[in-house]
Amino acid sequence: MKLIDHLNWRYAAKAMNGETVTEDKIERILEAARLAPTSSGLQPFEIFVIKNKDLKEKIRLVAWNQSVITECSHLLVFAAWDTYTADRINYMFDLTNEIRGFKNEGWENYRNMLLSSYPQQDAEENFNHAAKQAYIALGTAMVAAAEEKVDSTPMEGFDANAVDDILGLREKGLRSSALLAIGYRKEDADWLVNLTKVRKPMKDLVTVID
Amino acid sequence: MKLIDHLNWRYAAKAMNGETVTEDKIERILEAARLAPTSSGLQPFEIFVIKNKDLKEKIRLVAWNQSVITECSHLLVFAAWDTYTADRINYMFDLTNEIRGFKNEGWENYRNMLLSSYPQQDAEENFNHAAKQAYIALGTAMVAAAEEKVDSTPMEGFDANAVDDILGLREKGLRSSALLAIGYRKEDADWLVNLTKVRKPMKDLVTVID
Repeated sequence: MKLIDHLNWRYAAKAMNGETVTEDKIERILEAARLAPTSSGLQPFEIFVIKNKDLKEKIRLVAWNQSVITECSHLLVFAAWDTYTADRINYMFDLTNEIRGFKNEGWENYRNMLLSSYPQQDAEENFNHAAKQAYIALGTAMVAAAEEKVDSTPMEGFDANAVDDILGLREKGLRSSALLAIGYRKEDADWLVNLTKVRKPMKDLVTVID
Repeated sequence: MKLIDHLNWRYAAKAMNGETVTEDKIERILEAARLAPTSSGLQPFEIFVIKNKDLKEKIRLVAWNQSVITECSHLLVFAAWDTYTADRINYMFDLTNEIRGFKNEGWENYRNMLLSSYPQQDAEENFNHAAKQAYIALGTAMVAAAEEKVDSTPMEGFDANAVDDILGLREKGLRSSALLAIGYRKEDADWLVNLTKVRKPMKDLVTVID
């Protein structure tokens, strides 16, 4: 099966049946998110994988009571860096040098350019930038789930400050950006499962300039 | 070949050879972007597909002179909505009703909730939200390109206002968010092609809470 088939198969399940997703599937979904490309390769986010029932219930209370939060198997919280710091930038450049086994002048110049700009920028601007990178990984995780024939429901409808408190994210320099419930659809309880997928027609999305 | 293999195969080509990517491949890449999930299904962005040589050259001048902009086959510009308006929200809800063939009270309540909140929010906040959705599609397009064994290079290093001017985006209520060069790597001119892909180890990316 190909990407377009996976994208057509998937939808944001509105009810899940509580069935556990096996760890090998979860690992491949997380590996896809880990491999997702990000700006300057910084991967400016972390992913919290919540299996704990009490924690899911706490999060559901600050997330419009969306049932999939407690019905899912694994709840993923994508938490973006609250800003770019010198330490965070150096971590990735040092890791790159270590893995590749050499220092490169051009790469070091690029590191210095980022060090001389990102940490001095407004934290909110940096967080917005980091959150966009997290969304690339979020999208990649949804494709990975579909390939595994596992349902995934992305959610932005939650009180981000409350989720940050529940998970202690701010102390870690993180801010919750999106939730992704991973599990299996409960067909007889889901109003969306049999409805046609709706997307803008290509003519309203794409303009070709020859 | 599976998603993880595609993600391992791909990299951000730093030099391309000018070869044209066939239209069927481009269509599948765009179709994947069109099918990408977005918040409330609003798909708050458009994609400009630039084949025109002069236009590519103009954009390269305001994008750090990155050579892939003129060496690529198709340059995709992901342009997010500058804000959410009632018209834009109504367009997607009306389209949904038209395609599904019925009106649903819950869905209409949801429309009204968005109408009573999004358009009144700060335009910059709305643009940031829209741009994040565009990044889901950007990531999906990169996976699609890899599946087609086509290279793709995402770029944020450009003067967004200048690109907006060149393409007349602001008049359309759009703002350029990311560029994606689609084409074929030029191996003998690309410093990155043979270097190891670097990603954070899983332990630095993921925290499991049992």
